[in-house]
Amino acid sequence: MGGAMPFPRADAPTPALMLDRAALDRNIARMAAFAAGRGIALRPHAKTHKSAEIGRRQIAAGAAGLCCAKLGEAEALAEAGLSELHLTSPVVAAAAIARLAALNGRAGGLSVVVDHPHNVRRLNAANAGAARPLTVLIDVDPGNRRTGVASPGAAVALAREIAACDALILGGVQYYCGAQQHIQSFAARRAAIVERTDDLRAVLEALRAAGHAIPLVTGGGTGSFMIDAALGVLTELQVGSYIFLDREYGECALAAGGAPAFEPALFVDATVISANAAGRVTVDAGLKALSADAGPPLVAGALAADAHYLFMGDEHGAIVSDEGPLPALGGRVTLQPGHCDPTVNLYDVYHVLDGETVVEVWPVTARGRST
Amino acid sequence: MGGAMPFPRADAPTPALMLDRAALDRNIARMAAFAAGRGIALRPHAKTHKSAEIGRRQIAAGAAGLCCAKLGEAEALAEAGLSELHLTSPVVAAAAIARLAALNGRAGGLSVVVDHPHNVRRLNAANAGAARPLTVLIDVDPGNRRTGVASPGAAVALAREIAACDALILGGVQYYCGAQQHIQSFAARRAAIVERTDDLRAVLEALRAAGHAIPLVTGGGTGSFMIDAALGVLTELQVGSYIFLDREYGECALAAGGAPAFEPALFVDATVISANAAGRVTVDAGLKALSADAGPPLVAGALAADAHYLFMGDEHGAIVSDEGPLPALGGRVTLQPGHCDPTVNLYDVYHVLDGETVVEVWPVTARGRST
Repeated sequence: MGGAMPFPRADAPTPALMLDRAALDRNIARMAAFAAGRGIALRPHAKTHKSAEIGRRQIAAGAAGLCCAKLGEAEALAEAGLSELHLTSPVVAAAAIARLAALNGRAGGLSVVVDHPHNVRRLNAANAGAARPLTVLIDVDPGNRRTGVASPGAAVALAREIAACDALILGGVQYYCGAQQHIQSFAARRAAIVERTDDLRAVLEALRAAGHAIPLVTGGGTGSFMIDAALGVLTELQVGSYIFLDREYGECALAAGGAPAFEPALFVDATVISANAAGRVTVDAGLKALSADAGPPLVAGALAADAHYLFMGDEHGAIVSDEGPLPALGGRVTLQPGHCDPTVNLYDVYHVLDGETVVEVWPVTARGRST
Repeated sequence: MGGAMPFPRADAPTPALMLDRAALDRNIARMAAFAAGRGIALRPHAKTHKSAEIGRRQIAAGAAGLCCAKLGEAEALAEAGLSELHLTSPVVAAAAIARLAALNGRAGGLSVVVDHPHNVRRLNAANAGAARPLTVLIDVDPGNRRTGVASPGAAVALAREIAACDALILGGVQYYCGAQQHIQSFAARRAAIVERTDDLRAVLEALRAAGHAIPLVTGGGTGSFMIDAALGVLTELQVGSYIFLDREYGECALAAGGAPAFEPALFVDATVISANAAGRVTVDAGLKALSADAGPPLVAGALAADAHYLFMGDEHGAIVSDEGPLPALGGRVTLQPGHCDPTVNLYDVYHVLDGETVVEVWPVTARGRST
């Protein structure tokens, strides 16, 4: 890891997180061009990559800032020099609210969602007298019951509460249709987002009718951004996974509705450590190298078409194929993760590839920063 | 994290990995007493805890050493001062073999499994001329096709290969029935282990008939140790999860066949960050805080009997209950992980509890050391 660069991909100790830098940069450029063409802002979600370097590349391509899922993630990225960070989950615990106020004092452009009047009052108290007020966005629940206010009335009541707080500024609304992102059919996904967006319009009308300016409406994801852009209600997209394109998103019809085609950029390389059974070999990447929540990774590269991966416990997986030759003992296999975000969170570094050469190692800046 | 100790459990930033030290020590003592009473050695598996401190406690209670799943895990524990480490997976890549030889030079009592003659020859070449030969164990496949030789004949051929190697010593045999550990019914689990052990006897007889001394026969796990001890073929147990008792093992009948009863010692504490929906609240622990491979965690503590956890994405979970009151916004929830090993690997530290007070923070010494 601390060795001299560059070195051949095949020399990286496995399991190794591999990032195809050219594919990453193409994906970043494609989404940036799409957003610029539609006149919608981009604030890519850093929970996907947890990387200061990737965040800087997204901002260099025109992003307005980054989203973070957790306060610890935002702290880590701010420490690495990034600003314009938006926290997409409420910050509620007393100690976390104090950390948030401290971060707002040192990182420009910070914002956080709120969905409850108690939380609004506590955020206001923690920021009272601060040089810089804290920007809060009203999180609106699209019916998924994860976070957010559940009705236009609750949104208006929360806006009134925020307006009464000297240390807070109402920055806008967040509306994230998480459960809808992975609907595989484009038509079914579009229908779900259209229906949800009608609810969002009702919330925005109620807020504006009550006299609240809502300059920012942020939301969307890699499954819905092309639909959101066409509907014209969101002003900013929180897309995350487009940079890597995991197996789960690869199974969704994404290149529809005018969206660009993304390409897989993130892989896990593994080594065959046992080859004693017919039609299968065992590799050194299991549940601690590949998050299993969205199913198995895809086998990439030049194996037979029927070659597939099976989880074999914490440390192992099987590559199974009846049709074709399998790599020999000591050979390498490249896997495309089933779900990129929790897989990246298992690793300390990205091995950054130029072709088949590791040319850089980038830290996973906010790995494990879940608090 | 770096704050002054002790502090109240409720002050730890969440999601937080919590370890009930008294329960841990009782579990360690129970297994040690069981093994001593049956005259079988213990080499607990460090892949469960990845902790030098917990390993030291197991050794202080009489363990002969520790198992490691990965070379990086063994390197991390050796660096923390532990020795008598056994690697339960083959080490195959050329660079890894070189690291293994270096580790053998500085850590006493190292051993590794082998399951292929090519690997034996490479290990021998890498250790040629070393002051200390490398101890290798023949890994025997109990029919799970993960690692191991697949027949008595292959075991004898491998033993012959090892005997011809100046830099290697044949230390014994490993036989790990991984797929059988989680059979919930004790009778069905026992029947499966009895059948597999007949195969192991055939391998051992063939090896001894060919003139090879097999002083050590290591294997078993938290689901089978009481069965293995009664069968009397294994000389050493590789039990791992008994120290924590996750939900998955808790659903197996373990306290049968003379085995002691273990108790849950590992938990994840989470905070309610949204409470706007009837019959549920959202907590700040999702796929990056709790491994999902074995299903959801259990809700511990004083909630209604129907309270259960649902994964809600990378960063969130729902606590759902129709019957009883749920914790309020900002309240805490304690969860018992579905699968302890990959959950521990998500965290940098254990918060060590004495009652409801965090009295120490122990590093997860080998977190992420998967190579």
